[in-house]
Amino acid sequence: MNAAAPVVLLSVACVACATQVPTIDRERLVDLSYVYDEHTLYWPNAEGFRHRKDGWAMTEGGYWYAAGEFTSAEHGGTHLDSPIHFAEGKRSVDEIPVGALIGPAVVIDVSAQAAADRDYRATAEDLAAFEAEHGRIAAGTIVVVRTGWGNRWPDALRYLGDDTPGDTTNLHFPGLSAALAEQLALRRVAGVGIDTASLDHGPSSDFIVHRILNEADIYGLENLANAERLPATGATLIALPIKIAEGTGSPARVVAILP
Amino acid sequence: MNAAAPVVLLSVACVACATQVPTIDRERLVDLSYVYDEHTLYWPNAEGFRHRKDGWAMTEGGYWYAAGEFTSAEHGGTHLDSPIHFAEGKRSVDEIPVGALIGPAVVIDVSAQAAADRDYRATAEDLAAFEAEHGRIAAGTIVVVRTGWGNRWPDALRYLGDDTPGDTTNLHFPGLSAALAEQLALRRVAGVGIDTASLDHGPSSDFIVHRILNEADIYGLENLANAERLPATGATLIALPIKIAEGTGSPARVVAILP
Repeated sequence: MNAAAPVVLLSVACVACATQVPTIDRERLVDLSYVYDEHTLYWPNAEGFRHRKDGWAMTEGGYWYAAGEFTSAEHGGTHLDSPIHFAEGKRSVDEIPVGALIGPAVVIDVSAQAAADRDYRATAEDLAAFEAEHGRIAAGTIVVVRTGWGNRWPDALRYLGDDTPGDTTNLHFPGLSAALAEQLALRRVAGVGIDTASLDHGPSSDFIVHRILNEADIYGLENLANAERLPATGATLIALPIKIAEGTGSPARVVAILP
Repeated sequence: MNAAAPVVLLSVACVACATQVPTIDRERLVDLSYVYDEHTLYWPNAEGFRHRKDGWAMTEGGYWYAAGEFTSAEHGGTHLDSPIHFAEGKRSVDEIPVGALIGPAVVIDVSAQAAADRDYRATAEDLAAFEAEHGRIAAGTIVVVRTGWGNRWPDALRYLGDDTPGDTTNLHFPGLSAALAEQLALRRVAGVGIDTASLDHGPSSDFIVHRILNEADIYGLENLANAERLPATGATLIALPIKIAEGTGSPARVVAILP
């Protein structure tokens, strides 16, 4: 009988382990991802989402079968920018560990500023105001800059500032400033997300924000949906891209766990 | 001064909220997804993963730029089968709520049986044995059937049983039995995953397991990686596909939180 004792103890230990699992309340989940279809917004010089349906019918075997194939630019819809997008030699999307893709999120809200200036770039002062209220942003945090642009999706003219196919010279939407990007790099955040098409504002032609963040091995999340549902602090973000070898980015499914 | 009191209280309340967030220990995360590249296994009659690189060079502006585009069958690599795959009128991948894609996972291990019979189909008795030890599987659970096939990836001959391009008539790998699928449907599980190419075993031509589960609005997860790292109970699974409108499935990033 003594020989059985360790087994019993192990069983008790396992039950204890199970109760230590972080229980995720499914009612507190928010989907921050837009659907991929013919209306999904891509950069004006990229082709949109292409989807081929195969089957979608009863088979000779007497059962239903539906499948398909799709083609997408790495950077379109709700997607992740990997550091190699704008920084040579940095991580591709498959090289970002899942531990960097799941973590605490904070929201710097510049909706009021962006409503007054559609080319607004969130500033280091906006960060300072956030930190004065909530404390310094910790390393590993996923920072979301909220502009309020989500309610314009998927109207290209209102969301991108221009709906001329192929033309990237007349875009207007808010983004980050280089000074803010430098501050976030100093804080060694894991990633920076935004509810517009780009971390750089529409008129940018040097993509300096991408360059600063990617050089610091920080990824981006663009075209986030439902950002208005995120609190300033307390949410956990889960941002999972497809694991594309040598991907410079990927469509991503982004989910928040509300506090 | 009294007018400020509610603000102070609100601030205190927010701090309390933050501490209630389920903290996810990044050290306990396991990536259950294979990389997408030219070696990724697809069904023999499907084209493999295609990836085009754009840029990957210094620009005239003096900065690095790399982007790309990719094409994939909905069902290849580590992916999700949506209920509409084999059940007319059921949910497409964009219609599965995120709450069904994140939840407690259990593992029914049939590695020993599959090692003795590469066409093994996990049985209702395998489920009964699991439940005798761990209790009845609760509604909403994500059930993983582990066959030990992961160590054969990405060797098509060993993993699929045949590496003849286009030929689906000589496949050999383990899966589930119809009787087990019916029992899991009765338990109203959220999804069923496996570390082989299909929930139906290789020789199947009627795909009865897919049909039973999909008809019950249960999704599938196929080609799971690193299944050997999952405990029988206590893990949380996060299985996030791309939100493809009318997608019958999608490449998915699947992550486990270990207990």
